[in-house]
Amino acid sequence: MSLIFACVDIPPEPWVKAIKAEIPDLTIHLWPDVDNPEKVEFALLWGKWDANLNRFPELSALLSLGAGVDHILTLENRPPNIPIIRLGDPALRTGMVEYVLYNVLKFHRRFPEYEEQQEKSLWIERSQTMPYKRTVGIMGLGSLGSACAKTLVGLGFDVIGWSRRKKTINKVGCFYGEQGLGLFLARSEIVVCLLPLTNETRGILNTTNMQKLPAGAFIINAARGGHLIEGDLLALLESEHIAGAALDVFETEPLPANNPLWSHSKVTVTPHVAALVDFDSAATVIAETIRRSREGRPLLNVVDPVRGY
Amino acid sequence: MSLIFACVDIPPEPWVKAIKAEIPDLTIHLWPDVDNPEKVEFALLWGKWDANLNRFPELSALLSLGAGVDHILTLENRPPNIPIIRLGDPALRTGMVEYVLYNVLKFHRRFPEYEEQQEKSLWIERSQTMPYKRTVGIMGLGSLGSACAKTLVGLGFDVIGWSRRKKTINKVGCFYGEQGLGLFLARSEIVVCLLPLTNETRGILNTTNMQKLPAGAFIINAARGGHLIEGDLLALLESEHIAGAALDVFETEPLPANNPLWSHSKVTVTPHVAALVDFDSAATVIAETIRRSREGRPLLNVVDPVRGY
Repeated sequence: MSLIFACVDIPPEPWVKAIKAEIPDLTIHLWPDVDNPEKVEFALLWGKWDANLNRFPELSALLSLGAGVDHILTLENRPPNIPIIRLGDPALRTGMVEYVLYNVLKFHRRFPEYEEQQEKSLWIERSQTMPYKRTVGIMGLGSLGSACAKTLVGLGFDVIGWSRRKKTINKVGCFYGEQGLGLFLARSEIVVCLLPLTNETRGILNTTNMQKLPAGAFIINAARGGHLIEGDLLALLESEHIAGAALDVFETEPLPANNPLWSHSKVTVTPHVAALVDFDSAATVIAETIRRSREGRPLLNVVDPVRGY
Repeated sequence: MSLIFACVDIPPEPWVKAIKAEIPDLTIHLWPDVDNPEKVEFALLWGKWDANLNRFPELSALLSLGAGVDHILTLENRPPNIPIIRLGDPALRTGMVEYVLYNVLKFHRRFPEYEEQQEKSLWIERSQTMPYKRTVGIMGLGSLGSACAKTLVGLGFDVIGWSRRKKTINKVGCFYGEQGLGLFLARSEIVVCLLPLTNETRGILNTTNMQKLPAGAFIINAARGGHLIEGDLLALLESEHIAGAALDVFETEPLPANNPLWSHSKVTVTPHVAALVDFDSAATVIAETIRRSREGRPLLNVVDPVRGY
């Protein structure tokens, strides 16, 4: 029984070490170096990858190294009946809550304005808004989105959420579906995108939808670059309908050096680091999937390939 | 019965309006305009003020417009037996928790490094530390400090605290007194000063004490400028023993335009706005003090002038 590690641009050593520490008898092959393809039961995948998984007749699960699985769903020649497992790593939730909280507080408390003032040695007090008067809208109420929503509720914010299907979260005004989107956007002074990337959500942050936000709204995208039309955002920043954005993901990654987002005074760019996996924590979760699969127990964090998440 | 509003550089109108909304029959005089000094029962004070409160023989309480009362304790000719009340406004706690959380997350998640990278269009992932491996030290465990400590515990940080006298807060390692200070500082990767300014705490963030912090520590001062020796901090930033600082308060306020902190790349300057009072919320608290005093009920948030907080 073996696992094939096929993650683009990810150094394999710490992963191999952490997973072997959990399951010492597991053989781990580093793509494309596989002796016995017929013995490969698990594939650990990340990034744009052009392999043909049909080489491995005994594959029993496709594991993502991150919370998103769009890179697996879009694989050519993906064997259709093999379960796809997203990384249900609690460290990802922790990291995402920290990233979202930091950026919500940045916009809520007008820290970008204070940074501009500092550059000019200007001592000017700006008005503050109590958090219960500030509406933060979370798009996507899965594991990451609901964790962020709950933390923001705990800090006293007025939190609303939007998801494809109806959800219920204590103290969060939940909107859903196509008909709920406009109502949700109209109230979101700070909107946080944590949606899965699917055919339905691709390009959802476009001119039409962003214009539904209140004037002066802020955008935080920590999901996928494919959710946001960068040119539309730039135009809405120019017209000042959008007052600022914190972006961790981009249409093209790494963000090309000549992309105007890098130098835009109202945009914060981070290099897809909102929620990095923690080797130890992630290896525990990956090992649990392998053990459950070996023992025939139900797998956790299985993705519905039709829904896309 | 009347109140004298004597707050330096604070526009009185919104305060008068908010307090009158709570207690319509209260006469409010704006210093130095007082018809009947013998009828003044309450003084609402802020900033450096040179009045002689002995003009008001019937004064029954000195109310601070903020959480700190150092401006009242240091008043010349302060009548010694009149209770001093700090502003126990829940909005101040809310604001302080937001400010501290934002700056702790900034340093914890290395956002200043990502900002530097953005200036150079550099896409480089930096390692992340799980919050339980990050020790945040809170100096001062009063209303504001304990609120910050509890919120950071809720986010999974390793939180320790230091206060003059022994305190107990769930999941917070509490140090106290002179002998606990060195142990506390040696563990604080991010130290947050929320102490009252007293003779014992003035200049507490000096070279000797800051050198006890782990190399590469960060400093957040949201208490009073008098706690931190700015020249000592600049030298320790220069030697890289201190990796960065977020300062909301300064030895001289407004911070003079030629002060080197304004342009220091490792220092964030905000103009004493960490926790601004909210008119409505503060007026409710002030009115409660006045009602309790009128009715002979015990006053809340009374300061011990000997301890200084």
